[in-house]
Order: sequence, then C-alpha cells, then structure tokens
Amino acid sequence: MTEFFQVLTPAAAWQRLTEHYQPRPTAELLPTVDALDRFLAAAPAAPHDLPEFRRSTVDGYAVRAQDTFGASPGLPAFLEVVGEVAMGQDADVPVGPGQAAIVHTGGMIPEGADAVVMIENTQQADAHSIEVLAAMAVGENVIQVGEDVRAGEELLPAGHRLRPQDIGGLLAVGVTEVQAARRPRVAILSTGDEVIPPDQRPGPGQVRDINSYTLALLAQRAGAEPVPFGIIPDQRAALEQAVRAAVDTCDIVVLSAGSSVSYRDMSVDVIGAMGEPGILAHGLSIRPGKPTIVAVAEGKALFGLPGNPVSAMVLFDLLVSAAIRLAVGADPFGALKPQVQARLARQIASAAGREDHIQVRLEARAGELWAVPVFGKSNLIYTLVHADGVVRVPLDSLGLEHGAWATVTLHQ
Amino acid sequence: MTEFFQVLTPAAAWQRLTEHYQPRPTAELLPTVDALDRFLAAAPAAPHDLPEFRRSTVDGYAVRAQDTFGASPGLPAFLEVVGEVAMGQDADVPVGPGQAAIVHTGGMIPEGADAVVMIENTQQADAHSIEVLAAMAVGENVIQVGEDVRAGEELLPAGHRLRPQDIGGLLAVGVTEVQAARRPRVAILSTGDEVIPPDQRPGPGQVRDINSYTLALLAQRAGAEPVPFGIIPDQRAALEQAVRAAVDTCDIVVLSAGSSVSYRDMSVDVIGAMGEPGILAHGLSIRPGKPTIVAVAEGKALFGLPGNPVSAMVLFDLLVSAAIRLAVGADPFGALKPQVQARLARQIASAAGREDHIQVRLEARAGELWAVPVFGKSNLIYTLVHADGVVRVPLDSLGLEHGAWATVTLHQ
Repeated sequence: MTEFFQVLTPAAAWQRLTEHYQPRPTAELLPTVDALDRFLAAAPAAPHDLPEFRRSTVDGYAVRAQDTFGASPGLPAFLEVVGEVAMGQDADVPVGPGQAAIVHTGGMIPEGADAVVMIENTQQADAHSIEVLAAMAVGENVIQVGEDVRAGEELLPAGHRLRPQDIGGLLAVGVTEVQAARRPRVAILSTGDEVIPPDQRPGPGQVRDINSYTLALLAQRAGAEPVPFGIIPDQRAALEQAVRAAVDTCDIVVLSAGSSVSYRDMSVDVIGAMGEPGILAHGLSIRPGKPTIVAVAEGKALFGLPGNPVSAMVLFDLLVSAAIRLAVGADPFGALKPQVQARLARQIASAAGREDHIQVRLEARAGELWAVPVFGKSNLIYTLVHADGVVRVPLDSLGLEHGAWATVTLHQ
Repeated sequence: MTEFFQVLTPAAAWQRLTEHYQPRPTAELLPTVDALDRFLAAAPAAPHDLPEFRRSTVDGYAVRAQDTFGASPGLPAFLEVVGEVAMGQDADVPVGPGQAAIVHTGGMIPEGADAVVMIENTQQADAHSIEVLAAMAVGENVIQVGEDVRAGEELLPAGHRLRPQDIGGLLAVGVTEVQAARRPRVAILSTGDEVIPPDQRPGPGQVRDINSYTLALLAQRAGAEPVPFGIIPDQRAALEQAVRAAVDTCDIVVLSAGSSVSYRDMSVDVIGAMGEPGILAHGLSIRPGKPTIVAVAEGKALFGLPGNPVSAMVLFDLLVSAAIRLAVGADPFGALKPQVQARLARQIASAAGREDHIQVRLEARAGELWAVPVFGKSNLIYTLVHADGVVRVPLDSLGLEHGAWATVTLHQ
C-alpha cells in the first residue's frame, strides 16, 4: 500500500503548480455580442470619445450660464427661446447672449450654450421667451465630450471576464469585435470498474458516473471547454493511453479516479509517467479531498481528484478553476466569489494543519441567515445537492463555535 | 408635461404587479445533461434507493462487528480472510462468524458483514488471516442502502434552478430527463430617434444602442429567452404596433424608452393602451430609475425602463428578473444573490422615502475590502463598467457613514 508521499497545504500545492504551469493565453476574434463570460485576451481601447458631443441630462433649455447668474423665483432671468434641438439631430440652433433653446434629455447641446436649466426651473413668459428661476453653473446638467470615456482610453483590462454591462460599454463606442482568450480545453476522465454511464441500470456493485458530468459543467462555468473522455477501464494500458491523449490534445487534464488505494496508485503511476516535472503534490492537507494529485507534464496541468463527488467538487473549485483562469490570463483567485454571511447552526470541529470545507444549507431564522452544516459522508452526492454553499475552516483554526458568523461561499 | 401619476415604492409596485401578473409555468422535457441553469417544472422523485447495495467508504476488511468487540492493539481479534470483493461486482463472498473479506472503497459489502475495518487498523497474521486492532461499531465505514437518497424521495423541489451538482444528483439515480419550465420569452424594445445600431457610426446627436444588448444578456442570465425587437422609431403607431406584437408573442415585455418627457409620455400611452388592468405604477421611489413604468396587459408583464443604462440595469435586477423567476415557478426573490461585505470609502447621502442604489468598485486595502462609490451620471455606461456591484440604501435610511460596513451585491 502506497502512502501519500508529497502531502502539501492547498496553497503550497498551488505554488508548486504555478512554478511549472505557465500557460500563455491565445486570442481569437469574436463578435462582442457573443463574448459574454469570455475573458479578454487584449485590452480594447476607445476608438473615440463617448459622447462625441455635449448632451443634456434633463429636459429643459440650453442656456449660457452667465445669463442666469443671480436668477431666483423673485428675480427671474428672461431669455428668448430661439428654437428646439431635435433628438438625433445636429443642434443647429446657436444660443447667443440672452437666448435659450429647447433641449430634451440626451439631446445635443447647441453652440454657445454651456448649461441646461431644467424645465421645472422655468416659466413660460410669452410665446417666445421664458423666465429662468434659478442660477445655473457652467456645465450644469451637461455631459461633456469624453465624460463617459476618452478616445484611446483602455476600456477594460486584459484578463477581464465580460459581463452584460461590459458588452454594452464596448458596443457604445463601436467595439463590435473583441480579442477573447481561447477557452482552455479541459479533459475530463473518469475511472473505476464499478462506474457505468448514467443511462444504464447498475447491477450489483455498480454505480453511475456522476463526476464526468458535474466536473464538465463546472469547467464550462469557469470559462473552459470541457472535453469528455468518458469512463476509462481500470487497466494501466488503457488509462495511460487515455491520459496521454488528453495531455496531447487538451490544456488541463482532470482525472476523477476511483477512491481505493489501488486506483489511486495506478493514477499516480500513470500521471507521473506523462513527462517532466511530473507529480508535484500527492495528498493535500484538506478535508474532504486529501487523496488529490497535482502534476505538470509537457506544460499541461494535471489533477487527479478523489472519485467521491463532494471531494471532487471542493478540489475543482479550489484548484482546477484557478488553473483555468490562469490559462486565460486572468487573476487565478481574482473571481469575486459570491458569498453571504451566516451564523453557524452547529459547532464545527477542525484540526490545526488541515483546511476543512463544510457543506452548508442556508436558513432564514427570525431575520438572520443561518448556515446549517450538511453532515454526510463525502461519498454522497446529495450532500452537495442539499447544500447552498461551503464554509472554509482555515489551516490554523481548531473549528468554529455555534452561533459564530461565518462566510459562506455559494454554490452557483 | 405629464407628471408621474402613480409613484410607488419598489415593493408596492411589485405587490401591485403580482396581483395581476400570475403566470403559469409550462413544462418541456429535456435531457438532464442539457438542463444546467434551467428551472424544474416538477419535482423529480428517486426511482430507486441510492445506493442500492451497502458500500464501503474505506479500503479494508468487511467483518461482523461483534467479532471485533474489545479488540485493541494489545488484544487483537483474529479473523480468517475468505476472499476479496471485486469492484463493480456482486459481493459473492459471504462473511461468517470469525471471517473477513477484502473490500475496496466503494465496493459492495458482502452478506453477513455489517462493518468495515480500515486496513490501517489491521495486521496480516498469516497468509489467510488478519489481526484486527480496533473494535468496530455496527455500520462503521458502511454506506447503507438508501443512505444517499431513498426510493420515492423528492430529489429537488419544483422551481429549483439546476446547478452542476444537481445534474449529478439526478444522473446518479438514472433521471436522464427532467421536466423543465419553458424559458419565458422576454421582448426587448429600444426607442429613441437618437439611437442607432452599434455597428453604425453615430452622426451629430446620435448614440449607439446599448440597452437592447445589455438587457437581453441580463434576461438570458436570469433564465429567460430574450427576443430582440430592435430599435423602434419614435412614432406612436410604430411603437404601438411593436409593443402589441411583443405582448402577443412574449411573456414579458421590456421597453427601454428614451429618457425625455415626450418619450416617456408616449411609452405610458402605448403601454396603457395594451389592455387591462394597464399601468400599475408610473414612477418609483428609487434612484436611479424613478421614471419606471410597471403594467400588466392580457396577463403579460410590461416594464417601461428608463433609457439610461444604469437605471435600466438597476430596475431590471430589481423587477424584471423577479418577474422571470415568477414565470418559471421559482421564488421571485429566492435567488441567493452573490454578496460581499465591504466598508464604504465615502459617505453616502440619501433621502428618507427613497431607495438608493449606489454603484461601487471594490478595493482591498490593508486586508479589508472597501467599496468605493462610482459616482457618475446614470447616463454613463462606464459607471456600470467600472462597478463591481451595488450598495442599496433602504427607503427609511438617510444614508451611510464613511467606513460603515455595507452589503455589496455583485454584478456578475
């Protein structure tokens, strides 16, 4: 029986990984409207100012601010109305001293004017003139040229993951194509002689494959292209051939191995045979998930995850998703993880020197959010199904008290 | 000039909406593997126990617990090893009194055995027997039949949005198809004579369409099928025809109107002409986003959102996404919103009776997370692009102090 021979903290394992795994993102040109959730391979710059003309933020009258100085309801300023700026049109009604032009929200400010007085601060004096009831500062209610963004300005940094509003911001300045990082290919392999496809009826001793699907969907969410390799027979030659094909064709290889020692031993052997530098960590000081393998071969990152679904998901979230972000040029731990604060409904014990990841269900009780640990063996998929998120107990902690506030990272 | 005639709090507007908007989700059968992020229209039940046979959680020996009572390193129990349970196979090595069978993690427990002793707690005595160094309780290291889930048990409730681990849980019991709620069709209409498509170069007074794209992507994320209606000319007949077509073919209609009073008036007229009960709120006590219209006609929900991108997004997040969840049978406000706690880098003033939504950027400073308000006119799309999330100041608050802890709901 092989013992774990390179037990590291998760942070130390990541550190060793990144000494050897240094992927370079490659770019592909995409229509901006199709680039939601993609990572930018290059920082786009603004082709022109936004807006390119001064715009009004209110409905009212474009004026020369100095004509309104000292104006008040008791001492209004009288201005001649010389015309109206039509929406979407050039503002061809110059405003001279003592003059005003009707302008709508978003409309162009005509030449000569330098402020807009809201319609609420005016009164019609006669058919062609108004009373202004308030003094305007220069620039008041005006969006200046380039106030949203300046020509040449970096719109978003490389490595940024595009959200709906980012797509809007790019389109606003006519950036209809972007350089996106190619999605890293993540090979997903399952092993185990007891594992069968989900559409088959298990016989005695058999279980359906879960991890191939769960891990592929997690990879997709993290921004990768999952490449399913299916269930690999538990024979050294078959496993070696499949992992070799994965290393050759993908950027990241995730092996969800059977949990028994003999499977683990075979995984270690096969992963270790893929090339230099080989295995970097075998065993992590984490629960669940101790029997994890981290390796690099031929510039590719390889992860041997425990076969049980809870451990596999915890380790995926911790290491594989960070490796995916590294491969697209993003800050590996820069994702703003969705979190809530909640009080612990039960005490959680931990051991110093071990990081614990506790699955929890959230419950609202008398206006407070409580995190109820879902205690289940990590072999049970419904531990995850019943969990809303996870509470991390750090390496140096001995546990968390009942009632203590904890940060819950939500499953999405 | 028409004043807002039905100013309500956001909560009151939602209340009025739900009195009249009571959609019934319709179901469609989908392969489970394709149902990520879909909402369940019906609660699936487990077709059988999971697991269907007792499994070991460790590598070791299946034993009869009573044979190990009192066993310790100083007084080991001697057991005869009668065979090995192969993975994925029926456990055809019955364990009698004084006997043990080799079993691997995940392997089937043979008849007669009721516990598994970890290999670490055993020693080889001779070729056919072992010493057990610890007493086992009945059921120790064993997953019982149905311990993960029981036959007939509801696996997930109707209205639940499927996550990767949920797909895994369904596949684990062979549920390879699910009844998913049909994605509600959300019509997206933009208006404004100044608005042009993003691939065109704006002339004087013109701006590119942003909201059609941003709102469509937000609708998609919320679980709907966005139906783009494009930019509608600002003529009453054209607008009425487009909104009518949207009401006839979609479940929810979102009109992003120009912000000027004349546009708003036309939107109110057209939306109000669509049918009973018509306009339910015109003007919300919220900033930004006051000029919002909420209506129901022919059982469909209609929203007239302000044309400026920041208001449009705030109101979409607040009302439209909740309406989408209602349409799929989910708890409208049950989405676990991704949030972080951060300290405010600037004081925020508010008015009682008005809800404020402040866009913020997050910054780590000396180990603490700070929320820096992105002060920009709500007409500026880059206010949103530079924001990581939003801080809500409730109706009854007069603002938040510098340095106070605030909840930031993250943009995703």
